[in-house]
This record gives sequence, C-alpha cells and structure tokens, in this order.
Amino acid sequence: MSVGSARATRAAWADPAELTAAALAGDRRAVARLISLVEDSSAALREVSALLAPHTGRARVIGLTGAPGVGKSTSTSGLVGAYRAAGLRVGVLAIDPSSPFTGGALLGDRVRMVEHANDPEVFVRSLATRGNLGGLSWATPQALRVLDAAGFDVVLVETVGVGQAEVDVAALADTTLVLLAPGMGDGIQAAKAGIMEIADVLVVNKADRPGADHTYRDVVAAVRMAGRPRESIADTAFTGAGAGAAAGSAAADVGAVGGLEDWHPEVIRVAAVSGQGLPELVAAIERHQTWLRASGVLRRRRLRRAGEEISQLALAGLRARLGRLDDGQRLAELARQVTDGQLDPFTAADTLLAGVAG
Amino acid sequence: MSVGSARATRAAWADPAELTAAALAGDRRAVARLISLVEDSSAALREVSALLAPHTGRARVIGLTGAPGVGKSTSTSGLVGAYRAAGLRVGVLAIDPSSPFTGGALLGDRVRMVEHANDPEVFVRSLATRGNLGGLSWATPQALRVLDAAGFDVVLVETVGVGQAEVDVAALADTTLVLLAPGMGDGIQAAKAGIMEIADVLVVNKADRPGADHTYRDVVAAVRMAGRPRESIADTAFTGAGAGAAAGSAAADVGAVGGLEDWHPEVIRVAAVSGQGLPELVAAIERHQTWLRASGVLRRRRLRRAGEEISQLALAGLRARLGRLDDGQRLAELARQVTDGQLDPFTAADTLLAGVAG
Repeated sequence: MSVGSARATRAAWADPAELTAAALAGDRRAVARLISLVEDSSAALREVSALLAPHTGRARVIGLTGAPGVGKSTSTSGLVGAYRAAGLRVGVLAIDPSSPFTGGALLGDRVRMVEHANDPEVFVRSLATRGNLGGLSWATPQALRVLDAAGFDVVLVETVGVGQAEVDVAALADTTLVLLAPGMGDGIQAAKAGIMEIADVLVVNKADRPGADHTYRDVVAAVRMAGRPRESIADTAFTGAGAGAAAGSAAADVGAVGGLEDWHPEVIRVAAVSGQGLPELVAAIERHQTWLRASGVLRRRRLRRAGEEISQLALAGLRARLGRLDDGQRLAELARQVTDGQLDPFTAADTLLAGVAG
Repeated sequence: MSVGSARATRAAWADPAELTAAALAGDRRAVARLISLVEDSSAALREVSALLAPHTGRARVIGLTGAPGVGKSTSTSGLVGAYRAAGLRVGVLAIDPSSPFTGGALLGDRVRMVEHANDPEVFVRSLATRGNLGGLSWATPQALRVLDAAGFDVVLVETVGVGQAEVDVAALADTTLVLLAPGMGDGIQAAKAGIMEIADVLVVNKADRPGADHTYRDVVAAVRMAGRPRESIADTAFTGAGAGAAAGSAAADVGAVGGLEDWHPEVIRVAAVSGQGLPELVAAIERHQTWLRASGVLRRRRLRRAGEEISQLALAGLRARLGRLDDGQRLAELARQVTDGQLDPFTAADTLLAGVAG
C-alpha cells in the first residue's frame, strides 16, 4: 500500500497492521504511535504484539538508574553520543515514576537529549506511567519490544532509582548501570546494600567534583565487601577479585582467573557533562555484554524477563476480571462487611476469588 | 491460660489465638510479633485476621509523606508527642521503600523516635517491604489492622513520598499530610501536581529556615490554582475559599459557607524540630477528622480502603496460583517461546490464564 502523502499515511495507520509495518520499516512517527498505544493499554496491542514478536530479541538493553540529581539524563545523553559515534541506532525510554500523577511529562522529552533531537537514528521517549507502578511494570517491556522490533541496536532505559523502579529496570535490562555522585550524603550509604544487588556497572558520575574520590573509594569498598557477584552460575565464586580497583580490572580478572562463571560489578568514574570516562563506561558495558553472551546468562535473563512479562499481563487480565465481577457489587458488599468488622479481608478475598477462578 | 513466666508466654504465643489475645490486651511484644507475621506473610495470618476483625475501625489513621529530607521523622515524632500530651495511645508505621532490599532496616527504629522509646503507650515499627511494593501494598493495611485492633487511638503511617508510595499512603489514611520544606528546589515544583491530588493538609516544615516564606506562598498559590477539593461530594464546589491563606481559614470557610460538601487542603507552617506550629497542625488534622465524620467521607474512604485491601489479597492469591501452575513448567515454556519470538506475550498470558481461571 502506498503511503505517498501524510493523509494516506494517517489513514493507513488506523489499521494496526499497517502501523506496525511502518514501525518495522523504521518510521519514527509510527514507532511513537505504537508506544502511545502501549501507554493507553490499547486493545490494538494484541495484534501489534503478535506482529512485532518475530522481530524482537536483537537490541542490547541497558538500564540506568540512580537517585535524583546524580546526572542520569546527562549520562544517558553521553551514552547516546558514544553509541551513535559507533554507528548504532539508539532508543531511549525515560521512565519517571516520581510523581505518578504527572508521569514523565514534567521531566519529559523537552529537557532531555536536546543535542540528539535532530538525529534520525535516535529515538527518545518519556513513558508516562498513568499513576500506578503496575502500569509501569506492564508498559515498559511492551515499549521496549516496539523499539527492539523497530531495529534500534541499543535501548537505554532510564529511571529514577527509588524503590521498585530500580528493581524493575534491573529485571528488564541486560546490563544495569547504577549511577552515584559525590555529595549525595546518607542517601548513598542507605542505598548501597540495595544497589549492590542490581548493579552490573557502578558509575560514579561528577568525578571532577570535590568528594568524588571519597565516593569512589566508598563504592569500591562496598563492592568488595559485598563480595559475591550479582549472578553466580557456579559455586566457584571467588572474592576479592579487585572489582573496581581500576576500570575493567575486575572483568579482566574474571576472564583470566575465574572463567565465565561470575561477574563482579565494575566501578567506573565519569564526568558525563564533559564526556570524561564515557569511553571507559562503554567499554565496561561491552565487557559485560560479552560476558552475558558467553556465559549464557543473557539467555537466562531474557527467559526470566519474558516470564515476568507474561505474568504481569496475566495478572492485569485477572485484575480486570475481578473488577468486572458483578459490576463490582460483590466486592462492594465484601468491603462493607470488612469495614464493619464482620469479616476479615482474607476470607473476603477467598469469597471474591471463588467467583472468578475455579 | 496463665502466662505467668516469659517461657509460658512464648509457649502460648506459638498459638495464633493466644498471641492475638495478648495483642488485643495491649501486650506490646505480642503486637510486634503479629506485625512480624504480616511481614513474613505467615499462614497464621488468616486466623489472626479473623480474630482481629471485630476490634478494628476505631483508630484515626494519619498518613505522612514527602520527599527525602523534608523532616518526616521529626514531624512524626512531634505529632506523637502532641497526641501523647492529649492522652492518646499512638502507633507509628514507618515505611521505607527507598531501598527494597534493605527495607526499613537502615532507617529503622533505632534512629527514629528516640524520645518516645520508653513510653509504653507509643509503638513504633519500621515495616520492611521484602523487595516489592506489591508486598508493601499488601502488608501495610494488615499491620495497620494489628495496631488498630490493639487499641492505638492514632496510627501515623509515614512513608517516603516518591512514586507509588505516596498514593498508597493516601489510599490507606483517613487524613493525608504532605510535607514540604524550603530549599528542596525543583523537586517541589515537579511534585506539586501530584501532591495536590492526595494532600488533606500541606505542611511546610522548617518554617524557621530562609526561603520558608517563599515555599509557603508557592504552596498556597498552588492550592488556589488547583481550586478543586480533594474529594467533592456535591456539585456546589466553591473555589477561592482562601485555602491556606492562614492556618485553618479554609476549613473554617468551608464550615461557614459551603457546609460539609468540600474539603480544601489547608497549608500549615511548622518547625518540627522546635515544635513551632505543631498545635496548629494537630488542630488542622482534627478539623479534617471532624469533617470526615460529619460529611460521610470517612465511611466512603474506609469502604474504598477495604475494597482495595480485599483486591490486593485476591491478586496475591491468584499470583501464587499462577506460580504453582505445573510447578512453573508451563510458564517456563511460554517464556521460551516469547524469548525466541515464536509467541507474543499477550497470547502467552491468555494461555497461562486458561490453566488457572475458568
């Protein structure tokens, strides 16, 4: 079908199949439209998803997370530039759950990525979360599928590293970067234990600022203390491999001494504003990607991601079914009994479920 | 049954009924034990919950939320002191989703509430979230039930106001306080739109700091701009009622002019460290509680809360059922097909559900 005019294009895009075909051919507006369908939980997504499926699984997915103020947007922009310089097409999904009512709108596309705005091989999108993290958990992997199928070689998923969001991004990404910065005070201390669990690469941003050396040493010490790799696939985990003692040394040691069994998080110093350290960061990501493939962990992570994705969709379906039950009358009556202390919520939940699932 | 010795007490508490009876009688260690059962998703909770049910619904539930650094713990401690001075028993649930892996442990009981540590009529508990907000959504209302049934007159639920947590606390509380502080920069601006949706009382803390007047005027202006009350139960909403122009004036206006229909968020200045403004804050909360009861909104909120609670438990049950299905073999095979692009996740979810729900 010809899409010779803007009007013809729009008409064709009323059909999910045509829209999907345009996105697969690399049409940026079609990609944007598909992601809007995801945000809107459009019924057309089922058809779209089936058409996208055979084209997925090729993009490298890199997650970036960190507390507000550590320089995530600047770092993302720096990475986009580095990957573009290597000739790769780059997609960016920016997820901002910090205000569920405004979604990504406030920190959205306008203020990010200005320098890449005119690059046709870069696609940046803030994902609005419509007020619930369930929505985010559900929508982000679907938006990722769109960019993956549309042929972006690298997809950066950027999210504010607070609470569930950082876990979600780690579950979604092949490689998870956790950003830190000097002068963030107790927040870093408090976050460390959690960060160690999800980081493949720790990035100390603003490395040209006072206190950066202190932060760097802190993080390196924390990595050493944590000792165990993020994902151990053999019992021969070795500790004290010098993770982060210098950029890249940990991975090199793993390759030389420990074989492919373990990955110890690397710690990389970066000043994203000036670009200092970005090549080293990209190199660390590539080492991790190489390890992911060689060790078989990439496959395991993607299987797990798909399993989680299916479960989320299944639960969303069940939740909708619960909501429709008797037009909510049964739930309303159960809620009244619980509110009045006549029934406990567990028994109420059992009663509700008896009506929906055999 | 006699609980004459510590050993006898512990033995009796192996029985959920005895443990619950002790908690209902006000035994603090029994209360703590019950909340641990909630955190652990113990199977004993079903029995416990049924025993607690007739004793619930009496506590005033006050939620406090706000960005890190606005002084939530100090404000909570100040409110505890104020309610204790009025002779009320106070429970505090501190929820810290900022690091899902460490839960509330790092910012836990140790550093909070030191001044109330020896008051037997105050019970403080950090709720660990075990790594997922689903867990938090599920556990917090159950922990609240324990404190409610154990006879605490006021329960303060404190949470970091980022993302979903602030929505959850608003859904749970009768009265939601949103804390702000001068010098928080863009965060406040960004958060405003969301804050207006959930706040019953806006608290400008650190009111003795430079910039506090500016923050206060900003918030008052935002409340005016938002115009509409949090929960309108009539079409006769009136705007420009001077919400926040002076502490308490909005509610007074509502009472005098608009009857019981609307609640416009009040804006209260506080310096929690010195105690300045705390009596005004307590008065604002009490005005809101009075309005809640008189308007019938309290009942509506609690019905909604119970409905959400039942739904969460039902979904948790369904999720467990999905996980048990064929020992996860069916999900694993579906995940493989999705990973390999042979199947889209929607169809996979349908297939999965066909096995669990009729």
